[in-house]
Amino acid sequence: MICEKDEKGIEALSREICPPDREAMEKAAARQEELAKVPGSLGRLEDISIRMAGITGNVTGNDLRKQCIAVFCGDNGVVAEGVASAPQTVTLCQTINFTRRITGMSAQARYFGIDVLDVDMGVAEDIPEELYTDSMLTEDGSIPVKIVNRSIARGTKNLAKEPAMTRRQAIQGILTGFEAADAMKKAGIQLCGIGEMGIGNTTTSSCLLSAVTGVEAEDLVGRGGGLNNEGLETKIRIVRDAGERCRDMDPIGKLAAVGGFDLCAMTGCYLGAARNRMPVVIDGFISIVAAVMAREIQPLVTHYMFASHKSTELGYNTAMERLGLKPMFDLGMRLGEGSGCPVAFKIMEAGCASMDLMKTLAEGSIDAGYLEEIKKGNFF
Amino acid sequence: MICEKDEKGIEALSREICPPDREAMEKAAARQEELAKVPGSLGRLEDISIRMAGITGNVTGNDLRKQCIAVFCGDNGVVAEGVASAPQTVTLCQTINFTRRITGMSAQARYFGIDVLDVDMGVAEDIPEELYTDSMLTEDGSIPVKIVNRSIARGTKNLAKEPAMTRRQAIQGILTGFEAADAMKKAGIQLCGIGEMGIGNTTTSSCLLSAVTGVEAEDLVGRGGGLNNEGLETKIRIVRDAGERCRDMDPIGKLAAVGGFDLCAMTGCYLGAARNRMPVVIDGFISIVAAVMAREIQPLVTHYMFASHKSTELGYNTAMERLGLKPMFDLGMRLGEGSGCPVAFKIMEAGCASMDLMKTLAEGSIDAGYLEEIKKGNFF
Repeated sequence: MICEKDEKGIEALSREICPPDREAMEKAAARQEELAKVPGSLGRLEDISIRMAGITGNVTGNDLRKQCIAVFCGDNGVVAEGVASAPQTVTLCQTINFTRRITGMSAQARYFGIDVLDVDMGVAEDIPEELYTDSMLTEDGSIPVKIVNRSIARGTKNLAKEPAMTRRQAIQGILTGFEAADAMKKAGIQLCGIGEMGIGNTTTSSCLLSAVTGVEAEDLVGRGGGLNNEGLETKIRIVRDAGERCRDMDPIGKLAAVGGFDLCAMTGCYLGAARNRMPVVIDGFISIVAAVMAREIQPLVTHYMFASHKSTELGYNTAMERLGLKPMFDLGMRLGEGSGCPVAFKIMEAGCASMDLMKTLAEGSIDAGYLEEIKKGNFF
Repeated sequence: MICEKDEKGIEALSREICPPDREAMEKAAARQEELAKVPGSLGRLEDISIRMAGITGNVTGNDLRKQCIAVFCGDNGVVAEGVASAPQTVTLCQTINFTRRITGMSAQARYFGIDVLDVDMGVAEDIPEELYTDSMLTEDGSIPVKIVNRSIARGTKNLAKEPAMTRRQAIQGILTGFEAADAMKKAGIQLCGIGEMGIGNTTTSSCLLSAVTGVEAEDLVGRGGGLNNEGLETKIRIVRDAGERCRDMDPIGKLAAVGGFDLCAMTGCYLGAARNRMPVVIDGFISIVAAVMAREIQPLVTHYMFASHKSTELGYNTAMERLGLKPMFDLGMRLGEGSGCPVAFKIMEAGCASMDLMKTLAEGSIDAGYLEEIKKGNFF
C-alpha cells in the first residue's frame, strides 16, 4: 500500500544519487589527451568515455555490453478528446509485440542482443494470462521475456476533464520505475535505455513539459503519430490549459494531474538508474520529458543520462535545453518505444572502446622490445 | 608491369558497376510503409534498408555482420613544404599500430570484431619484415593481420615542385584498390569502410578537391591535424596552385599530379567495392575526397557509398555536395584512419534489422492462432 512513507521514499531514494566522480573524469580526460591521436579528434566519443569515468569512478574497464531497454506501457484517458491518430488498441498490440521482438525497438534489440524489460503500467485492454509475469526477474536472475504486471489501472482518467490519476497512483508509478532500475542492476545490466508505449502520450508529455517550462503550447505540440489539423488544435488547447493549471504544482503533482502511468515509471527509472550508478539512455520526445521530470525531482540525475537521437517532435529541443544535454545523432527518427537506444548504445561502446584499447604514442612506440616480440611471432 | 592495358582495365572494371536494382528498392520501400509503425518514423534507418535492397537486389536478408575497414597507408613528398603538423614518422608508426589494434580506428575494430585490411601503398620508412605479407588473403581465405606490401615507392614526390607520381604509378595504386575490394569480397566481407594513414594527406586531398570542383582553396583548406598559421598559408597557396594546374586533367591525371598513393588505392577500392556490389562506408575528409575521385571515374559508384560522420574539416561539405549524399551522424570526429566507420556499420545493421525482423500490423496481429501458440508456451 502506498502511503506518506512512500512519498518520502522517493525523496530519500533520490537523495542517494551521487554527483559524478570529478577526479576520475579528470584522469579520463588526461588519458584521452595522451592517446595517439590529435587531442579531441574522436569528438564526442571522448566525452562519452570521460562521462562514463564520472559515473563508475573507473577510467578504463567500463564494460557496457550487457544492455536492456525498459519499456513502460499504459493507456491515457485523454485519447477520448481525439488527440491521437492511432486507435487505443495499438497500445495492447505493441505491448505484446515487444515480447515477440517484432516492433521497431524490439527488432533492433533482438538483433543486437539487448534485453527488453516490458512493463504493463496500465494498458486498458486485457493482456493474455500466458504473457504475464509478476516478477521483474526470472528465477535465474535475468530479465523476463514476458510482460511484467505492474498495472495501476486500466488507463488514466481524461486529464482534460479531471486529474489523470491520484497522487498515490503517481507515487506507485514512480516507485515501479525505481524497482525496474534495481531489477536491471541485479540482472547485471551495465547500460539501459528507457522507452514507452501508450497511445496519447505525446499529449501527456507536452502537458508536463508546458507545466515545467512555461513554454507556449503552440511551440511544444506536434502531430505525434500523425494527427490532423482539428486534432492538433484540440491538442494545443488541452496542453495550454493543462500547463497553466498545474504550473505551481510539485513534480509528483504535475505527473498526477496531467501525466501518464508510463511517464511516472520512466521518471522513477531514470532516478533509479542514477541511484544505481547505471548510465541511462534517453530515446525520443516522451522519454526526454520523463527525463525532465526526473531532473525536477533530483537535478544530479542528468549526469547519468545520455541523449540518443534528436527527435523530430516539436517540443524536443525545449526539453533538451532544460536538461543541458546534447543528442548524439539525428537520423530523422520519431517512432518512440526506445527505438533510438540501440544505436546510442553502440556509440557509447565505441567511446569506451577508444579509452580501453587505444594506447599513447609512448605505449605504442615501435621500440626494441616490440621488435623483439614480433620476431617471436607475438604481434599483439 | 603497368601498361596501356591497365589503364583500359580501370575503365573496363568501372563499367562493370551496375545501377541499383530499382524494383527491389520499390519493394523495400513498400515493405517499410507496411511495417507496424508510422510510415517514415524510423527515418534514415529505413532509407538505409531501401538502399541496401538496391545494392543486393534482396529486400530482406541483407546480412552486414562480416565487416572490414581497408586502410591504405603512404607518405607524401609535399610534407617538405611544412604543411603538416605531425612528423612523417607517424605514418610508419600508425601503419604498424593498426596491426596491434591500438589506434583510434583499429581499437574500435578490435572491440566490434571488424577486420582491418592494412595496406602499405608507399610508407617512407622501413616496415619490419615480420609484419609484412605479400597477400591480401591468408591461406584460409581471411583478411591478414599483417601489413600487405603494395608499396609503389617510399612516398610520393613533392607535388608543389613536380608531379606527385607518374601516371603509371597512379594506375598501379588504383588497381591495388580494386584488388583490395576483390580480396574483401573473397573473404566474405559484407560491408566495408575505407580509411587511410599518411601525414600530409589533407593537403593532397584538398588539392584534388580544388582541381575537381574549382572551389577556392581558402574555402577548402583546414588545419588538418593542427597546423599553425604559417603552415596554413603555405597549404592554401599550394592547394590554389595545384588546383589551377590540373583542373583540365582527367581523374587519373589529377591523382598522379597532386594525389597520394593512399588516395589512388582508396579511389580504386570504392570502385572495386561497387563492382562487387558491396556497400562501402566513407570516413572523413580524405576518404570522401577519394570517393569524389571514384565518382569522377564512374558516377554509378555513389549508389554503393554510405557517408558515416560529418567531418569538421573545412572542405568536407564541398565533397559531400559533389557526391549528393548525406552523412549519418556528427560526433565532432576528425581523426581519420577510418575511425568513423564502426559506428556507421552499426547504424546500417540497425537499418537492415528493422527490415528483417519487424512485422506488419497484420503479421503481428494478436489473433486466435497467436493466442493458441502462447497457450502452448511458444512465445516467439
